[in-house]
Amino acid sequence: MAKLTLFSGTANLLLADAVASTLGTALGECSIERFPDDEIRVTVHMDIQGHDVYLVQPTCPPVAAHFLELMFLADACQRAGASRLTAVIPYYGYARQDRRERQGEAVAARVIADALCTRFNRVIAVDLHSPAIEGFFDIPVVHLSAVPLLADSLRSFLFSDQVVTAPDLGAVKVAQKYADLLGLPVAYAHKVRLSGRKTEVHQIIGDVRARSPIVVDDMISTGGTMISTIEELLKRGCSPRLTLVASHGLFVENALERLSAYPVERVLVTDSVPPPSAPASPSVQIISLKNLLAEAIRRLHVS
Amino acid sequence: MAKLTLFSGTANLLLADAVASTLGTALGECSIERFPDDEIRVTVHMDIQGHDVYLVQPTCPPVAAHFLELMFLADACQRAGASRLTAVIPYYGYARQDRRERQGEAVAARVIADALCTRFNRVIAVDLHSPAIEGFFDIPVVHLSAVPLLADSLRSFLFSDQVVTAPDLGAVKVAQKYADLLGLPVAYAHKVRLSGRKTEVHQIIGDVRARSPIVVDDMISTGGTMISTIEELLKRGCSPRLTLVASHGLFVENALERLSAYPVERVLVTDSVPPPSAPASPSVQIISLKNLLAEAIRRLHVS
Amino acid sequence: MAKLTLFSGTANLLLADAVASTLGTALGECSIERFPDDEIRVTVHMDIQGHDVYLVQPTCPPVAAHFLELMFLADACQRAGASRLTAVIPYYGYARQDRRERQGEAVAARVIADALCTRFNRVIAVDLHSPAIEGFFDIPVVHLSAVPLLADSLRSFLFSDQVVTAPDLGAVKVAQKYADLLGLPVAYAHKVRLSGRKTEVHQIIGDVRARSPIVVDDMISTGGTMISTIEELLKRGCSPRLTLVASHGLFVENALERLSAYPVERVLVTDSVPPPSAPASPSVQIISLKNLLAEAIRRLHVS
Amino acid sequence: MAKLTLFSGTANLLLADAVASTLGTALGECSIERFPDDEIRVTVHMDIQGHDVYLVQPTCPPVAAHFLELMFLADACQRAGASRLTAVIPYYGYARQDRRERQGEAVAARVIADALCTRFNRVIAVDLHSPAIEGFFDIPVVHLSAVPLLADSLRSFLFSDQVVTAPDLGAVKVAQKYADLLGLPVAYAHKVRLSGRKTEVHQIIGDVRARSPIVVDDMISTGGTMISTIEELLKRGCSPRLTLVASHGLFVENALERLSAYPVERVLVTDSVPPPSAPASPSVQIISLKNLLAEAIRRLHVS
Amino acid sequence: MAKLTLFSGTANLLLADAVASTLGTALGECSIERFPDDEIRVTVHMDIQGHDVYLVQPTCPPVAAHFLELMFLADACQRAGASRLTAVIPYYGYARQDRRERQGEAVAARVIADALCTRFNRVIAVDLHSPAIEGFFDIPVVHLSAVPLLADSLRSFLFSDQVVTAPDLGAVKVAQKYADLLGLPVAYAHKVRLSGRKTEVHQIIGDVRARSPIVVDDMISTGGTMISTIEELLKRGCSPRLTLVASHGLFVENALERLSAYPVERVLVTDSVPPPSAPASPSVQIISLKNLLAEAIRRLHVS
Amino acid sequence: MAKLTLFSGTANLLLADAVASTLGTALGECSIERFPDDEIRVTVHMDIQGHDVYLVQPTCPPVAAHFLELMFLADACQRAGASRLTAVIPYYGYARQDRRERQGEAVAARVIADALCTRFNRVIAVDLHSPAIEGFFDIPVVHLSAVPLLADSLRSFLFSDQVVTAPDLGAVKVAQKYADLLGLPVAYAHKVRLSGRKTEVHQIIGDVRARSPIVVDDMISTGGTMISTIEELLKRGCSPRLTLVASHGLFVENALERLSAYPVERVLVTDSVPPPSAPASPSVQIISLKNLLAEAIRRLHVS
Repeated sequence: MAKLTLFSGTANLLLADAVASTLGTALGECSIERFPDDEIRVTVHMDIQGHDVYLVQPTCPPVAAHFLELMFLADACQRAGASRLTAVIPYYGYARQDRRERQGEAVAARVIADALCTRFNRVIAVDLHSPAIEGFFDIPVVHLSAVPLLADSLRSFLFSDQVVTAPDLGAVKVAQKYADLLGLPVAYAHKVRLSGRKTEVHQIIGDVRARSPIVVDDMISTGGTMISTIEELLKRGCSPRLTLVASHGLFVENALERLSAYPVERVLVTDSVPPPSAPASPSVQIISLKNLLAEAIRRLHVS
Repeated sequence: MAKLTLFSGTANLLLADAVASTLGTALGECSIERFPDDEIRVTVHMDIQGHDVYLVQPTCPPVAAHFLELMFLADACQRAGASRLTAVIPYYGYARQDRRERQGEAVAARVIADALCTRFNRVIAVDLHSPAIEGFFDIPVVHLSAVPLLADSLRSFLFSDQVVTAPDLGAVKVAQKYADLLGLPVAYAHKVRLSGRKTEVHQIIGDVRARSPIVVDDMISTGGTMISTIEELLKRGCSPRLTLVASHGLFVENALERLSAYPVERVLVTDSVPPPSAPASPSVQIISLKNLLAEAIRRLHVS
Repeated sequence: MAKLTLFSGTANLLLADAVASTLGTALGECSIERFPDDEIRVTVHMDIQGHDVYLVQPTCPPVAAHFLELMFLADACQRAGASRLTAVIPYYGYARQDRRERQGEAVAARVIADALCTRFNRVIAVDLHSPAIEGFFDIPVVHLSAVPLLADSLRSFLFSDQVVTAPDLGAVKVAQKYADLLGLPVAYAHKVRLSGRKTEVHQIIGDVRARSPIVVDDMISTGGTMISTIEELLKRGCSPRLTLVASHGLFVENALERLSAYPVERVLVTDSVPPPSAPASPSVQIISLKNLLAEAIRRLHVS
Repeated sequence: MAKLTLFSGTANLLLADAVASTLGTALGECSIERFPDDEIRVTVHMDIQGHDVYLVQPTCPPVAAHFLELMFLADACQRAGASRLTAVIPYYGYARQDRRERQGEAVAARVIADALCTRFNRVIAVDLHSPAIEGFFDIPVVHLSAVPLLADSLRSFLFSDQVVTAPDLGAVKVAQKYADLLGLPVAYAHKVRLSGRKTEVHQIIGDVRARSPIVVDDMISTGGTMISTIEELLKRGCSPRLTLVASHGLFVENALERLSAYPVERVLVTDSVPPPSAPASPSVQIISLKNLLAEAIRRLHVS
Repeated sequence: MAKLTLFSGTANLLLADAVASTLGTALGECSIERFPDDEIRVTVHMDIQGHDVYLVQPTCPPVAAHFLELMFLADACQRAGASRLTAVIPYYGYARQDRRERQGEAVAARVIADALCTRFNRVIAVDLHSPAIEGFFDIPVVHLSAVPLLADSLRSFLFSDQVVTAPDLGAVKVAQKYADLLGLPVAYAHKVRLSGRKTEVHQIIGDVRARSPIVVDDMISTGGTMISTIEELLKRGCSPRLTLVASHGLFVENALERLSAYPVERVLVTDSVPPPSAPASPSVQIISLKNLLAEAIRRLHVS
Repeated sequence: MAKLTLFSGTANLLLADAVASTLGTALGECSIERFPDDEIRVTVHMDIQGHDVYLVQPTCPPVAAHFLELMFLADACQRAGASRLTAVIPYYGYARQDRRERQGEAVAARVIADALCTRFNRVIAVDLHSPAIEGFFDIPVVHLSAVPLLADSLRSFLFSDQVVTAPDLGAVKVAQKYADLLGLPVAYAHKVRLSGRKTEVHQIIGDVRARSPIVVDDMISTGGTMISTIEELLKRGCSPRLTLVASHGLFVENALERLSAYPVERVLVTDSVPPPSAPASPSVQIISLKNLLAEAIRRLHVS
């Protein structure tokens, strides 16, 4: 059986290291130098001829740089004779550009997929924003979900009055998954122009009064969608003890700071991207993907 | 400028012919023979060296046969020296298999797209079930919408009490488009397990009581989704004068007959697929795509 | 060594099952659902990560549907992580369209081959109508022949006066193979315009008077070629005890019924396609390909 | 309209020059230097940015060198910005290796086709040994025939007693074409083991006694097949005034000298390859392809 | 003739705008938005169906972001139906990684080329670090040189005592080009271990004593190579009036400030990348590529 | 583990055989027939289903024929089911055409690489003229160097006064490698127009007076560069005991004979191409690559 070797780009070294440990190995030796002119040079410092190689790199900000790093590492491994190359991408940048909303746009998620397909044999991804992205690849995509992990973690501090809430229509399916796993009711917010006029009405479907919402989504970026949902929930008289859950916690633009103005007790995300240096409030809890990824890698490797 | 030549497969000869007439031309001469062993042989009977060729073929049932016919026509045209080949696919079969809902499934819409990309330079499609399908192609896709056409047609018999209704979450966006065009309010049906139990509750969001629903979707296949929505609307006290609208009217399995048991006044679809030999009731009205397609072809051809 | 897994499409489940048994295994679990709108959904219901997968599917009528089924199964297996995919195609539809006889035609056999090459790593085929089809693939094609099997079977009821007869020029090579294996003389029929006029003369080359012909071809479709050859042989005074042999027995359009009007004692074909529900006369004997295919699969698998 | 530019490799400069003249132009300036180490360097010495370029090069002996020359010219033209590249290959080397006759062989004609497809947009070929070769290309192949030209030329010295003769089964179709064009009867030779024993019998089908044979084939290489057919015809009492006709006259290994031992009055071939420096007898007549090729190029160019 | 449309990414809007003006047109309307999570969205805001589109974008720092922007713009233009797409890349990032210096490295320049080839039809580049990079593309590369432009500019302040100097072996060819154009002698610096020991000796070949050096290279990045050459030249007694010339002036890490410590009278570069906000000394002179690029575009467009 | 099988083309059977012996095996059985019309037919005469196959073939003169032979062998092996194909190319023809020196040229080395990439999985090469050629491949290239082997061999007859000399700038790097390995000083010759006039001056950098030069290069073709360097060295008063070293010794056009007019004591090359039938003087010593190649193959095979 080919030897398993795991390399990490610079995007999330801690997670890659944890995955390697879980697999009972150490990260492969490679270096990624940055020159003064912003170019990088990757070098694999070990013999990987014939190895089954896994490259761990979420394409979180800076997205373009992390993406090119991944491509160069792949080129280096391919030329060094790796027998099989798997991209382990816990967070897939540009996943939301999976269609042209308007004439003249690009399908950025496909551009990224095309490039990956030129160098990799397989991809491991976690909670892609849209499952149709899998169809952009003509190589196998192992699409993992962190939802069961996050739901497990929620169980330890469940209240009797909680309600899983989706902040928009796109999150209804994932909310249903949490609700099923936790045995909780579900509600969801969404914006619609029921009147035919241009003014959008933010609606909450389902009973939230005096209930503690668990607002779930695939990712928290600036926190904007979360905040408008929270405001709406509070207007509807929800209990002021909110929990926020997402697979990917980017927390850009002081998202956490802005969230701290609301009665959010807990924010639960994975380490698909490097965790924020969190403020005192709200309490951010990080659930590691290390076992999920290690298990997926082990399964691919032995088969 | 290259000569424009239009061929039709056997799937919808009437529409292809109407498009050709609208363009002020006649369909190109080609034959599609079927042998006793079910194989077909396509032959282009004219010189198309250097022509700008358009092949009109919805991939409606029998889907596989219509698809292969399109592929063989494309091969024949390519070998005969067409300078550019555009597939005009008013109805795209397998559009709903754009993702793997469960492990072990195929992404059928991508398999179709891959094959088309090997022979065609461009695709014209109408109201694809999922816009992400465009990302399955690496050739330009002109994605047309029949919604403005259908909305125009609705205008001539608008009542003051109507409400546009989406039969599930997937149709909310298209319902909003109709509502905007017609200045009507919107409602939508969907199924959810608000209680956390396994029983689904069919909900109607928005005010439908004493209103005449216009139920809109991208396609009507067996009519099952339409029927359960109609039943729910009636339960909620809607006015018993329903209109059904869809871009693609497949009407398989006696769909129209089964719909005739309900107070449906009018069913409005395009001729993307050959129209049904409709029963007396409900009244089926067919809006032709001929101008929409001819205009798109003309635009591609002159540019 | 990777695990061997065998799936069957719906075209010839009995043969696939027999091959699996011969290999000491059972067919892999997959389902192929057909929806009311004629679309199918394939699902692989087992873990095939890293398996060496073989898909058994002759592309016999309905050719297009069987072909798409095979493509979707391949896509499902590829996405599920099969390490190697082999198409086992005992009968290859469209094999006779391997060239453009006239301007404007397609090379349908190449269109099929191109599509297969996008999803499969290897192909196993049996007695392709033209060996040049192998050149349409850029993946290895294991081209098996059922001729030795069929010749073996003929041996048990050989008469001293038999003569192997090719019904046209295209079958001369295969007739020679049978003749060599059986130690019999060979004759052949063919049409030619020796006079330079437009009237074709059906000729029989070789001595057939008072001999019992074994007419051999690669396939029997409507039986038309066989029947005109039989009539010619009888005119030339052959013995009225004919045997017909072909690798592929499609028997479309009441072929067997029409053949029953002639002194055909026995029709010998393989189970590359599902056997006909044969009439009382002529006696149809089916030679199974199960050992031939199982052996080829075993050989590919262990290497 | 793009400018038409014609280049010639070194294989048949005279023909290329004649084609250019016929088109009312001169050959484009390019040089092909050969270095002492057997490598060549091609250089295009004119601006061809945006031109419609045709490269004339039969791949006659030395086949490999002529083939590489053609590939390098194509690369040079592509990099110099030609808008369209057409390979004009009057004689296609390796056309007879279009299938694997035995396990372990290559499909050389496909290897050549694959390489051409990487650099060219279209191919013009003349009387390919097997029409299935067209299916090896996924670019358009204009497949011309010199048969009408050669038949025209034969008309000027037709005797009343002539018979068109195919030297083997593979040439029967082409013989029929000549016979139809000339209004002559057809005969053919072939080898078969009618007896089931290993000894081949060379047969002549059709009436040749006291007739003057016109033996036709797609090419004459060493002349071996021609000679054994001539010997057989003479044995059968044909008139000792033979004519030999082929599209491609390679005449390797003193073919003409050896043919001069037989009563061959005339050998008719095209200039697809450079004509032999012919001996006094038999009389070799060369029919130029210049008009045929020029017409095909003109047709491609204006469309 | 197709319409010419020019778009600019964000890397060098001034140059793109100048090129458009030179061509007598305005830049096409497109927008490039940056989201808080570092992702960008490109949108083409005009109809470019059938246009001949040119995208101007040097891949200067931030290299990865500029590269992805270019790729997304290309995807948007392709999907919007551009008939031809040309990447105009005045400065090609990662050009120096055109080979693996050591085991384990990547060939980054090829990774970039591969991605460009998936979306573009042609590339225009200026003074690539290595001409072999052209071979990484299988699309035409118009490789322009700014050397004649820069030499022209040098002419206006030529001293009689100048000497063109290459700072290392890699720059000898370009130095020779300048020397030929200006009628000046050439010298060059390089490091070598003539003694076989590990200590490198920085050598100056050619006579520089009391001469004013014009040090030329393809690019100035940190200025390190320039500075060590200047120091060596001064040691050898050159005249303290140095001129530095390069096609690409990146000037990272305070290059200009550090150069100001030396007797550099003038630094001459093009606007392939946005010019630095230069300090008082040394005097930086920018030669625009606008005419060179406009001319190349015009030539491609009309052909 | 897959079985290792080694085939040889006709270019260097002795080396291939020596490599096989070193690996403890024999060359695989294949035949390469040449027909009178200059076409070849390759046949693999053994079962290689699933084998790990290595094809040894330097593309030395006749370059085109050796190249096509390699391609056909690869096609035969691929169709016969080899699991992995590695081209072992000790000498890579056309390596010097790795860039377009002038407009209108081809990048021949890329044309060769493209063709190899269509059939092979990996390449083993030795001392490529330019390392950038590796970037022309998108398959792994194991780039071996014979320099340590040749340096080892030089050690046995080292004089105290030797100096490693590069005959031009392109060979400086390789000269430095020899000098480092042997602990010798380095010098180099090159041509430059220091004066700005058109006359080139052949310079020798480094001290060569009364020293015995070891002139090193990657290859010796006609010996022209070597001879002009030798003449210059002698002018500069070097000791008349020269040694010439190169990885590839083509010795075309009586190179050895012409070299015999100079005081060359020894010429050292590898057997990458078949050794010359050497004259009495100078003494040519051949260092075999068999161990180097066998080791590389073994390493690839076990991994």
